[in-house]
Amino acid sequence: MIQEPIPVAVLGATGSVGQRFVSLLDGHPWFKVVALAASDRSEGKTYASACRWVLSDPMPEWARAMMLVPAAPQAVAGARIVFSALPADQAKDLEPEFARAGLAVCSNASSYRREPDVPLLLPEVNAEHIQLVRQQRHNHSWSGCILTNPNCTSTGLTVALKALDDQFSLKRAFVVSLQALSGAGYPGVSSLDIIDNVIPYIGGEEEKVEWEPRKMLGKLGDNGVALANVNFSAHTNRVAVIDGHIVCASVELAEPASPENAMRALAAYQAPASARDLPSAPHPAIIVRAEADRPQPRLDRMSGKGMTTVVGRVRPDPLFHLKFVVLSHNTIRGAAGGSIYNAELLVQEGLL
Amino acid sequence: MIQEPIPVAVLGATGSVGQRFVSLLDGHPWFKVVALAASDRSEGKTYASACRWVLSDPMPEWARAMMLVPAAPQAVAGARIVFSALPADQAKDLEPEFARAGLAVCSNASSYRREPDVPLLLPEVNAEHIQLVRQQRHNHSWSGCILTNPNCTSTGLTVALKALDDQFSLKRAFVVSLQALSGAGYPGVSSLDIIDNVIPYIGGEEEKVEWEPRKMLGKLGDNGVALANVNFSAHTNRVAVIDGHIVCASVELAEPASPENAMRALAAYQAPASARDLPSAPHPAIIVRAEADRPQPRLDRMSGKGMTTVVGRVRPDPLFHLKFVVLSHNTIRGAAGGSIYNAELLVQEGLL
Amino acid sequence: MIQEPIPVAVLGATGSVGQRFVSLLDGHPWFKVVALAASDRSEGKTYASACRWVLSDPMPEWARAMMLVPAAPQAVAGARIVFSALPADQAKDLEPEFARAGLAVCSNASSYRREPDVPLLLPEVNAEHIQLVRQQRHNHSWSGCILTNPNCTSTGLTVALKALDDQFSLKRAFVVSLQALSGAGYPGVSSLDIIDNVIPYIGGEEEKVEWEPRKMLGKLGDNGVALANVNFSAHTNRVAVIDGHIVCASVELAEPASPENAMRALAAYQAPASARDLPSAPHPAIIVRAEADRPQPRLDRMSGKGMTTVVGRVRPDPLFHLKFVVLSHNTIRGAAGGSIYNAELLVQEGLL
Amino acid sequence: MIQEPIPVAVLGATGSVGQRFVSLLDGHPWFKVVALAASDRSEGKTYASACRWVLSDPMPEWARAMMLVPAAPQAVAGARIVFSALPADQAKDLEPEFARAGLAVCSNASSYRREPDVPLLLPEVNAEHIQLVRQQRHNHSWSGCILTNPNCTSTGLTVALKALDDQFSLKRAFVVSLQALSGAGYPGVSSLDIIDNVIPYIGGEEEKVEWEPRKMLGKLGDNGVALANVNFSAHTNRVAVIDGHIVCASVELAEPASPENAMRALAAYQAPASARDLPSAPHPAIIVRAEADRPQPRLDRMSGKGMTTVVGRVRPDPLFHLKFVVLSHNTIRGAAGGSIYNAELLVQEGLL
Repeated sequence: MIQEPIPVAVLGATGSVGQRFVSLLDGHPWFKVVALAASDRSEGKTYASACRWVLSDPMPEWARAMMLVPAAPQAVAGARIVFSALPADQAKDLEPEFARAGLAVCSNASSYRREPDVPLLLPEVNAEHIQLVRQQRHNHSWSGCILTNPNCTSTGLTVALKALDDQFSLKRAFVVSLQALSGAGYPGVSSLDIIDNVIPYIGGEEEKVEWEPRKMLGKLGDNGVALANVNFSAHTNRVAVIDGHIVCASVELAEPASPENAMRALAAYQAPASARDLPSAPHPAIIVRAEADRPQPRLDRMSGKGMTTVVGRVRPDPLFHLKFVVLSHNTIRGAAGGSIYNAELLVQEGLL
Repeated sequence: MIQEPIPVAVLGATGSVGQRFVSLLDGHPWFKVVALAASDRSEGKTYASACRWVLSDPMPEWARAMMLVPAAPQAVAGARIVFSALPADQAKDLEPEFARAGLAVCSNASSYRREPDVPLLLPEVNAEHIQLVRQQRHNHSWSGCILTNPNCTSTGLTVALKALDDQFSLKRAFVVSLQALSGAGYPGVSSLDIIDNVIPYIGGEEEKVEWEPRKMLGKLGDNGVALANVNFSAHTNRVAVIDGHIVCASVELAEPASPENAMRALAAYQAPASARDLPSAPHPAIIVRAEADRPQPRLDRMSGKGMTTVVGRVRPDPLFHLKFVVLSHNTIRGAAGGSIYNAELLVQEGLL
Repeated sequence: MIQEPIPVAVLGATGSVGQRFVSLLDGHPWFKVVALAASDRSEGKTYASACRWVLSDPMPEWARAMMLVPAAPQAVAGARIVFSALPADQAKDLEPEFARAGLAVCSNASSYRREPDVPLLLPEVNAEHIQLVRQQRHNHSWSGCILTNPNCTSTGLTVALKALDDQFSLKRAFVVSLQALSGAGYPGVSSLDIIDNVIPYIGGEEEKVEWEPRKMLGKLGDNGVALANVNFSAHTNRVAVIDGHIVCASVELAEPASPENAMRALAAYQAPASARDLPSAPHPAIIVRAEADRPQPRLDRMSGKGMTTVVGRVRPDPLFHLKFVVLSHNTIRGAAGGSIYNAELLVQEGLL
Repeated sequence: MIQEPIPVAVLGATGSVGQRFVSLLDGHPWFKVVALAASDRSEGKTYASACRWVLSDPMPEWARAMMLVPAAPQAVAGARIVFSALPADQAKDLEPEFARAGLAVCSNASSYRREPDVPLLLPEVNAEHIQLVRQQRHNHSWSGCILTNPNCTSTGLTVALKALDDQFSLKRAFVVSLQALSGAGYPGVSSLDIIDNVIPYIGGEEEKVEWEPRKMLGKLGDNGVALANVNFSAHTNRVAVIDGHIVCASVELAEPASPENAMRALAAYQAPASARDLPSAPHPAIIVRAEADRPQPRLDRMSGKGMTTVVGRVRPDPLFHLKFVVLSHNTIRGAAGGSIYNAELLVQEGLL
């Protein structure tokens, strides 16, 4: 379908999510990286010399020698899409500049997730929300746009909830996360804080997890998205895991479901047709594990190349209806891979 | 008060909880260890040679040379109290033999916790339940008795819930644990299963956490304890922490309380008078931390010599009323230290 | 070259090295697994039900349904090669039975490494030692044979030493290992023994590391291999790493070399021609890292699909001549992958 | 002996070594903390509000409310001794100012360790080197002075080597460290760099370990200390341990010793008389463990309240004479505790 590779750039390319972008874009069938941008401090250095690579896959050869440029539209000239791994405060200032300059910003930052005309997108959940881009362009007279993917903890959780909501109508959910260290960036969490320890707090995270799924599960209308009528209580914790967020969830449904029916609904869940065959689409969308002690981060995070949501331990809940455990790779499905999937949907929908 | 030291024995002395008993009984003001019992395999060896000591405090000198005996009443002759760190299946068979032989069994095993005439005891919560011993002796025509302490995860949770229940009347609770490795015994969890990982499952644990607090918060009557009318949903997880269980809790109250009032109630909580000044009584019963990111296992587990329950992050819950985090040392307050505290209450109440 | 797939079996298939065999043989261009053998306890169960899979790559589909058979020649009928992941004591008894029955045993066990007519083989180091198989067959009147690969710590170390020995003639080496947990099998090391800890001892390991490289660096003669005239001192330690053994080495050479020349020799090192193009041959044999802080287990262990030896920090040694650090994947190059590479050499040399 | 408490201050009080100073000075029989100094950023804040406390012992009450002052002589007025936990570059500039102002600086920084007239002091090894203070005062016309303690890895190693050197005359040593995270300060090592990993490099550390023991084992003369004629090769590694440095050592002796004799010499070793009964003196100076797998950081680091050096695995070395393993608590004996011990010696010798 795609004839010529689409030129793309990565903002915040030296950080841990930026590295995932570089790694996942290596060999991408549609996109070709033409610029890597980083903070002023690194400008003019090669990517190899400025970046402390923390992934176990080696740095792609083409990236090593690439000269870092500043995070500004003119500096990434030629790119049509920018993937943003910027910190929220920088993203807030810079992303609109790129949209104004005609680029599509696929952002992992939280800055614009709550804007009424910005899609908060998980293609396998709410692909149709990409149409918000039209409202956004109209509102701002932009030729570019900003797409966001949700917080890494909301990601897997919302995929699982969507499968249940479709069939049994979700009402309330208690969720407790056990989150990986890569979610805090690099250097992020000090080793002295997490070896033989748990940190039962992640700043701003609970608010995101209690709100973001409501937008993604909501209905698209003429004036943005109507939040889904679902309520959440979230506790978020940091644990000594490199990659892969676990969420323990208890849910109340309008139509009570047995664990067996819930497992069937989860395993049968499919992305909307438009999002099903994109290069980064997870295959399958959800894996349901039958073992008593799965999913586990180290064993299951790479399911579906890190894009599949893994659910296990589906069982009755004494207070609500069902209990289960969700696992999602936080820097692949929950960050860089998610933004790339969003960009693919944008291209496919003819909105680039 | 105590003139002569009371002779005691430890059953299952070589395991990880058994080692905690030995360590905590070192220098105890009332009790003197006269026998250490272990499995047949170790019988006739010295404690030092049979036991792979896993605590960072050194093995007490008096214990090193002690010859291991079998776990049988005649083998621990002289002891009046036995502390049981036996596995549940062995405890089931052996503990009644000791009670029949006139010994008080202070057990950490789960085998008899649900028996109507066996106290499930946290002295700072339900000291009066020790009176069940009278019903138990009558029912079985025993001169000895069996006292149990709850599961390590129920322990800290129930202390915190009791303080809230007293003032605001507890109705429902969602609880998710992040549990330490020492709770699984030695060798317990393989390192290959937990480094860079979480295991979202602990066999039998959720059932215990959903039931045990109801007995402890219940009212003592002529026919045992009436379970408290409180309902629980529990998820239990194993994380890479040596000691100290974290529980994330969301609670519904009959009389809604602000976080400030809840913190005041928790901080002011006191053990019943009879349990307040015992050698192992925690001082204070509960510590409330004000920092956003506490309690943490490595930093807070030794609060009050490992006997104090630490609560933090008390905040509003969007679905129920309050959210908070509880920490308790699982092999001290939640196991060996708890059994010793129970024994002290038994002595103080003149029931030995 | 290979027309028909060669049928092979795995002995000890459910353990951690056995799992690596199954994973690495999935899709192998020459070999096809026809039988998986395990202890009596598992016999008659499917592999999926009997095996607690600990690898992050999923269990191959063809293996899941395979019925486990006993580790006996008649039970693996049809196989021409057996890969042995048996414990040393079982290997001692069973491996000769397979050789006698005409099968080639490619063993990861230590039982026969010191036999004069058994090759201790690293194809990229001493491919010519495979000719010992002729002596072995003659001595025992076997049509099968036993090939061994060295201990996982000796493996990477010997590859690096060989490159230096060829050019500068090695005399003595001090070596200290920091070894991964997977080397101890499953369940292996208790998590309570290694979190926030180091175990400065691995039973029998130092003797192996001080002896095995001498055989591999030795010369093949009519009566086996003359041990190389090189002397070793080894300290071995267990650290909290899942996969990948680090060795710190200080070496004395007959012809002193600068770090630059040593790095050149290491980077240029090639396997003997016969071992260079086999399916499991590492590409390259050795990677030399220039960064001050590499190799690191998590970042470098998968170099060359886990078959490449990674060397770094080559620098002058104040007592001997050179210091450096070696990394090798202990369950791939140092165990299952090594045995498979040995089998490939056997086939290629027409000795099967 | 000490009538009035001696007023002391801590420089760099909020860092991880600074926290150890505060913790170890709590209840010290001779010293009373009158000032805590930190970087300008923290000036004017209370210690409790400015310091992210990382120790498991709680922050002493007296320290919580203390107002932080700048690291300048006039700001710590009243103090006679300052304990310096400053980074090396700041220490270089600031410590002489304090000495000039008449204060005794007991420093953990490396800046002045190599100065000919600055004692590099382990009281149980080279207490007599404290006399260098006289040369130092003469050279600089200072009424104060600077005392240094060695690098944390050199510390335990040198204690063990001293015991052997006294009896068997040490010639050469190969040493490889496995160092704890607290040695890198806070936040120090990123968790992403060390979970499931080893970092085989610590900047500047090997040079220190190869030189510092030579000064400490050297002879005091009129012109400073003549370096001991002992040569070292060191490899240093960072591992996932909170506290406690392991060193694997192989030593060559002028008078070869059996492991038994070496163990006897180590176990019998005593500090010089002047350093034996000071409040922080380790009791005993050295513990020799007989078990095959000890010392281990988590189990042995608190030996002698963290001041005792623990040696184990004393065995023959195939290249030199003996191999063994040394453990020492890096932030107690190897840092804050060591500086305090040095200060005690200074007071006792009447040199304050």
